[in-house]
Amino acid sequence: MGALDEGHYYLELENGVKRGGNVKLSFEDEPEILDIEDAVRVLLQGLGEDIEREGLRKTPLRVAKALREGTRGYKQTVKDIVCGALFPEAGLESGVGHAGGAGGLVIVRDLDLFSYCESCLFPFQIKCHVGYVPYGHRVVGLSKLSRVADIFAKRLQDPQRLANELCTALQHGIKATGIAVVLQCSHIHLPNFETAILDPNHEGWVKILVTSGTGVFEDEKSDTWTDFLSLLRFRDVNVENIYSRGSSEKSWCRSHEFCKTEPANSVMLNAVASILCSLGEDPLRKELVETPACFVNWLMKFRNTNLDMKLNGFVRNRRDSLTSNGGVDHTEDCICSELNLTLWSQCEHHLLPFHGAVHIGYYCSNGASPVGRSLLQSIVHFYGFKLQVQERLTRQIAETVSSILGEDVMVVVEANHMCMIARGIEKFGSNTATFGVLGRFSTDSAARAKFLQIIPSSCPARD
Amino acid sequence: MGALDEGHYYLELENGVKRGGNVKLSFEDEPEILDIEDAVRVLLQGLGEDIEREGLRKTPLRVAKALREGTRGYKQTVKDIVCGALFPEAGLESGVGHAGGAGGLVIVRDLDLFSYCESCLFPFQIKCHVGYVPYGHRVVGLSKLSRVADIFAKRLQDPQRLANELCTALQHGIKATGIAVVLQCSHIHLPNFETAILDPNHEGWVKILVTSGTGVFEDEKSDTWTDFLSLLRFRDVNVENIYSRGSSEKSWCRSHEFCKTEPANSVMLNAVASILCSLGEDPLRKELVETPACFVNWLMKFRNTNLDMKLNGFVRNRRDSLTSNGGVDHTEDCICSELNLTLWSQCEHHLLPFHGAVHIGYYCSNGASPVGRSLLQSIVHFYGFKLQVQERLTRQIAETVSSILGEDVMVVVEANHMCMIARGIEKFGSNTATFGVLGRFSTDSAARAKFLQIIPSSCPARD
Repeated sequence: MGALDEGHYYLELENGVKRGGNVKLSFEDEPEILDIEDAVRVLLQGLGEDIEREGLRKTPLRVAKALREGTRGYKQTVKDIVCGALFPEAGLESGVGHAGGAGGLVIVRDLDLFSYCESCLFPFQIKCHVGYVPYGHRVVGLSKLSRVADIFAKRLQDPQRLANELCTALQHGIKATGIAVVLQCSHIHLPNFETAILDPNHEGWVKILVTSGTGVFEDEKSDTWTDFLSLLRFRDVNVENIYSRGSSEKSWCRSHEFCKTEPANSVMLNAVASILCSLGEDPLRKELVETPACFVNWLMKFRNTNLDMKLNGFVRNRRDSLTSNGGVDHTEDCICSELNLTLWSQCEHHLLPFHGAVHIGYYCSNGASPVGRSLLQSIVHFYGFKLQVQERLTRQIAETVSSILGEDVMVVVEANHMCMIARGIEKFGSNTATFGVLGRFSTDSAARAKFLQIIPSSCPARD
Repeated sequence: MGALDEGHYYLELENGVKRGGNVKLSFEDEPEILDIEDAVRVLLQGLGEDIEREGLRKTPLRVAKALREGTRGYKQTVKDIVCGALFPEAGLESGVGHAGGAGGLVIVRDLDLFSYCESCLFPFQIKCHVGYVPYGHRVVGLSKLSRVADIFAKRLQDPQRLANELCTALQHGIKATGIAVVLQCSHIHLPNFETAILDPNHEGWVKILVTSGTGVFEDEKSDTWTDFLSLLRFRDVNVENIYSRGSSEKSWCRSHEFCKTEPANSVMLNAVASILCSLGEDPLRKELVETPACFVNWLMKFRNTNLDMKLNGFVRNRRDSLTSNGGVDHTEDCICSELNLTLWSQCEHHLLPFHGAVHIGYYCSNGASPVGRSLLQSIVHFYGFKLQVQERLTRQIAETVSSILGEDVMVVVEANHMCMIARGIEKFGSNTATFGVLGRFSTDSAARAKFLQIIPSSCPARD
C-alpha cells in the first residue's frame, strides 16, 4: 500500500511528542512565531508593500498564527486520541456473517478538512471518507476517525501521503481487520495576471481522489473495497474517477510549472526556507526543496505594481469619448449586465487567496454595450492580482467601470475566502458578497432589484 | 427590533468577564465539570442504565465537556474579538453612491453554527448569514462576523434572541450603518417509540428562519433589507419563508407538548437543574423553568426497557413458521429490500441523537415478501429507542430480521450523528454508514453489490 511501515510510524509519534508536548493557547510569545513574522515581513517587502500600512501591520502575525495552527498536527499523537475511545462491542451471536464489533464495516463520510501542500505551502481542501472493519469485538468512537485525520492533515502534505499516513496510523491505533481511506482533494491553481487574461478558460482547481487501504482493504480489487466504494457513491464520490494508488504525484501541484519561468529573489527564498524551519520541517527534505520557489512565485503573482496610472489614462480616454458622443437619453436606457466575470485575488490580511465571481450592471441606451466583456474581465483581474480586501476591490472595480460606462454602475462581488477555511475558523462553504452602487443604482432600489434578479442563482465562477 | 438595549449588552459583556476570565484547556478539574458528571450519573440511573458499563463509564465526563464547550460563549466577549480587526478602508472618491468602507453592503453567508435550545437543552443547527453596511471608512475582518456569531451561539438560546443578540453586539462592536442577521435554524423533533410507530410520517425537524436588523436594516421593508435578501436567494434561502421578527416563540421547540404527558422523576429534574447552574445559568429564569422537565422527557424516550424478551418470543415463532413452510429453493430466490426505514436513536457516549435511514435486504422466493414494511420499521424503532451505538444497533437489527426472514440478510444503516456536530469536532455534514451481513450476503460479494445498487443515492430519511 505504500504507506509508512511500523518503525516509521512510531518514530512519527515520538517526533510528535518531542516536538510538541502540550499545546499552548497563546502562540504569540513562541520564538517560532516571531521568526515567521520576520520572514513574512521580508516577503511583504519583496512584494513592494509598505509593511507599516494598517491593513498589513498585523499580517505577519496572522500568517504566523495560521501556519502554526495549520501545522499543529506535528505536535499531536494518535495514541492520545484513540486511547480510551475503543469500546467493547459484540459481534454476531450465531450464524455466518459479520456485524457490530466483529467484521461489520463502518464508514464515516464527508469529513471536511484542509491541509497545506508541501510543494507550494498553499492550503488545499479535503473531503475525507474513512472506513474500517472492527476486529476483536472493539469499535472506535466515530469522532476519533475525524480527529486522527485532522492530526495528519495539519501538516505539510501530499494527498497520497496523507491517505497513507492516516491509514497506517488508524491501523496501528485501532488494530482493525482493515482500514480504508478515500480523500477528495482540491488544490487551487492560480493563474498570474497574464495567463488569466490570455486564457479565460483557465481551470482554477486541480481535483484528485486518492485512496489507501490496509488489511482487507489492501487490495483495490477486494470485495470489501468494492463494498466501501459502493457506499461512497451516495455521497457524490464518482467511483470511476478514483486514481490508482500512488499515481497522483505527477499531476497534483502545478506550482512547479510556473516557478521555473522567473528566477525568484533569494532573500524571499531564504525567508520561506526559514518559515519551513519554524514549522519544524527540514527545508532540505526532498519534497520541500522547491517549495520556497513555488511559494514566492505564487506570492509574486500579487505583487504591487505601478500600472494604475496607465490603466487610468486609458480609462479616462474611453470615458471622454463616451461622454462626448454624449447626451444619453435616460428614458431609453436599459440595464445591461456582464455576469460571472472570474475573480482571483489574495487577502492582504492572511496572504491567502479568495476567488469567485464579479457581476457588473450598468445603463446603456437600447441595450447596446459600449465595451466588450474582455475589457471588464481585464479590469477585474487588474484589481484582483494584488494584495486586496474584497470591499476595496469592489469599490475599485466600480469606480473604474464607472469611468468607462458612466456614473450609473452596480458591482456585486461574490467570493470564497480561503482564510475562512484554512485557519482555526474552518467555516467550509461560507461565502462573502459585497456591493458597490453608483449613481442611479444607489438611489433607485428598483434598479438594484432588477439587476440582482438578473444574477443567476448558480454560476460556475462562484463555486 | 426587539434586541438587547445597550445597557443589557454591556451587562452581558461584564457577566462574560466575571464568569470566565481566561479559557482553560483542561476542563476536567473544574468543579462545574465534576458537578455535571454527578448529575449525568443520576440521569443514566434514571434511565435504568448500569453506569459502570464500559460504553457509559465516561459518558458523564463526555456530556459535561460537551455542555461546557457548547456554552463557552458565556465566557467570551465581543470586544476582545472585534478590537484590532477594524481596518481603514476608503469609500468612493467622488460621485453619488456607496462602496468600500463607506456604505458598500458586505454579506457573509452560510456560516455553520450550532447552539443549545434553552427550552430543552437540545443542540440545534444554524446556517447564519450576516450583513452590514460599513460606516466611517472602516471595515471589519470577515472572520470576526463568524467569531462573534459563535460567541452568542455557544450559549443556551432561542433563535430570535440569538439573532437579536448577535445583531446588537455587532452593532456596538463595529459601529456600522446597520447590521442584518438571518438565521436558518433546524431543531430535531424526536418522537417517542409509540409516536414513531403510530405516525410513520412524523416530521422529525422543526425549521425556522429568523431575522434581526439595526440601523438601515431595522425596517424589514427597507430597500437595504431587500438588497440583503436578494443576495441570500443565491444560497437557497427561501425569501418567502422568512418569519416576521419575533414570531418564532410559539412554534419553535416542541418539547413542551410532550413533557406534560408524563410527570418526570424529581431526582432527575433536580439533576438537570443542577446542570443549568453549572453552566452559569439560573434555572429559575423564565425561559428555563420547564427545561429540566423537557430534557428529562426527551431522555426518557430512550430509557432501558425489558421488552427484548417479548419481541424475541414473537420473532422466534415467525421464524419457525417460515422454516416449517420450508424447503426454500435458493435458485429461485431473488433479493427483496425494504429501503429508507426511518431511524431515531441516541448515542450512549454523548447522550445526543443520531438519525437516518435503515436499508434491509433479504432473499425470498419469487419476490414475495413474507413480512410487511411496518414490522421491519417497528424493529428499527425498537432498537433505536434506547441508548445505542450505531454498530450495535446494526447488528441487533440484522440478527432480529434474520430470525424472521431467514439467515441471508443484509442491513445498511446510514445516520447523521449530532455528536459529530455539537461538540468541538463540528463536522457538519458528516455521515456514518454501517453494515451487517449475514449468510449468503457475507460470502457472496455479487449479492452485496446487487443490494447496494438498489439503495437510492438520495433518500429523505437520510437528510
